[in-house]
Amino acid sequence: LFNMKENGAVAQSGFRGAEGRPRRFAFSPEPSMEDIRRMQAEFTDERDWNKFHQPRNLLLAMVGEVGEVAELFQWKGEVAEGLPDWTESDREQLAHELSDVLIYLVELAEKCRVDLPQAVLRKMALNRLKYPASKVHGSAKKYTEYKD
Amino acid sequence: LFNMKENGAVAQSGFRGAEGRPRRFAFSPEPSMEDIRRMQAEFTDERDWNKFHQPRNLLLAMVGEVGEVAELFQWKGEVAEGLPDWTESDREQLAHELSDVLIYLVELAEKCRVDLPQAVLRKMALNRLKYPASKVHGSAKKYTEYKD
Amino acid sequence: LFNMKENGAVAQSGFRGAEGRPRRFAFSPEPSMEDIRRMQAEFTDERDWNKFHQPRNLLLAMVGEVGEVAELFQWKGEVAEGLPDWTESDREQLAHELSDVLIYLVELAEKCRVDLPQAVLRKMALNRLKYPASKVHGSAKKYTEYKD
Amino acid sequence: LFNMKENGAVAQSGFRGAEGRPRRFAFSPEPSMEDIRRMQAEFTDERDWNKFHQPRNLLLAMVGEVGEVAELFQWKGEVAEGLPDWTESDREQLAHELSDVLIYLVELAEKCRVDLPQAVLRKMALNRLKYPASKVHGSAKKYTEYKD
Repeated sequence: LFNMKENGAVAQSGFRGAEGRPRRFAFSPEPSMEDIRRMQAEFTDERDWNKFHQPRNLLLAMVGEVGEVAELFQWKGEVAEGLPDWTESDREQLAHELSDVLIYLVELAEKCRVDLPQAVLRKMALNRLKYPASKVHGSAKKYTEYKD
Repeated sequence: LFNMKENGAVAQSGFRGAEGRPRRFAFSPEPSMEDIRRMQAEFTDERDWNKFHQPRNLLLAMVGEVGEVAELFQWKGEVAEGLPDWTESDREQLAHELSDVLIYLVELAEKCRVDLPQAVLRKMALNRLKYPASKVHGSAKKYTEYKD
Repeated sequence: LFNMKENGAVAQSGFRGAEGRPRRFAFSPEPSMEDIRRMQAEFTDERDWNKFHQPRNLLLAMVGEVGEVAELFQWKGEVAEGLPDWTESDREQLAHELSDVLIYLVELAEKCRVDLPQAVLRKMALNRLKYPASKVHGSAKKYTEYKD
Repeated sequence: LFNMKENGAVAQSGFRGAEGRPRRFAFSPEPSMEDIRRMQAEFTDERDWNKFHQPRNLLLAMVGEVGEVAELFQWKGEVAEGLPDWTESDREQLAHELSDVLIYLVELAEKCRVDLPQAVLRKMALNRLKYPASKVHGSAKKYTEYKD
């Protein structure tokens, strides 16, 4: 298993480096998506739950977890980047629910034999073709037209 | 950028090694979640779309993409592991939609300053405590009771 | 307010009429959608919650309730019409969650000034044009082609 | 069938009565939920689609339609009551997607033998008990505490 929080994440505590410059947020380098897939596969195997973890069951489980994320945002009106008004407890609850979405997404991809990390590369390449930066830069109007 | 499909994924083509033994499915080691986060951040920056990519907008975009995954499964009845009856075109469409869910999930986590890879480790540790393998192993009944 | 269960619903208790013939299931004639809209508007007014019940908040609340419906179905595999293996408690839980989806859907429509009962008539007329019974009758193949 | 738009809805055109006072928005009295259920049951029967319209399929179809509603709201930031900045085309698209959610919700309830209009009365009675107006009136803080 991985030790937690020792991977050098640039995380929630103010985003400033030693000299006071803002540092960009970044994810920890580990675990990888394959690590997550393998750990969840072991979790499911050890409990003899593969019979329950079939594709449509996992999809509905993911829908349930997305619903739990939505519940955290539902009465808040617009929420600014970085969630400045949220308590630590709300943030950790959000971290849990986003994790649940990811866990079921990864297991759904596995059970469908989709190599998710590679699939994302292909989809991002398509997105760059579909929305060329030179054409869509700027206005919401252009953005919306492209989206539609 | 990463080259696609050169990362040694054990992928969709039959799952058998040289001697005919079934090989377990695994994800490609790359890209990492941080790679995906950075690539999507660059994509958004280059298009000047950060003003649109606020937390609740990204959440609704993720809900939309989950809906597109659901549409691929909606009239099929039960679907077996590995999607044996799906066409290549259906599989690629699914790969795209799962990727879209992941992309928005990653960007939502970033905009909320959630270190998603580390958050997953914490959540998985909680899940192991909540559902001890020795107690929940086996029957659907026990499983359901634990889930409830 | 309406008295409950006095509206002549042909409901869950066996679906048989006096002579033992199966009767088709039907909804109670009341409350109407306008009744539900008005009752929920009063509920929200009395609690001074209109400031929270804005369109996107209501949409996210509806997503949350759809997630709760999904949780009731997520580990069950295929489920037959009439839910023959569900307990009364599970059925009542489902009735609650489906009601929550409807309540937020109705309030979302109201806050968006969509006359939902009339909108449904228009959409159903479009659906009849889009999927003519003579053309789509029968096979899943035809159905899927039409859907796509 | 019902004639459309002849049922006296107080609808989208300005919300003012003859003397210029604002009139409250209301839904048309028809069709009732039972009308919608029956019309959709006929639509499904005529196409021999009951074999596809099983509970979990309908649930996933509803998730897909909720996703389409989300797509209409996803890049808009906060949206005011009445959707003042939306085009007529956007409004009609929304009316269609909300209708699709309702149609699948009604058919899901039918296939699960849930008398949805009566279930809503029971759920609203529970909600009034759970959130007494005298206690929750007013602040978001109280509201949130009650919700949690």
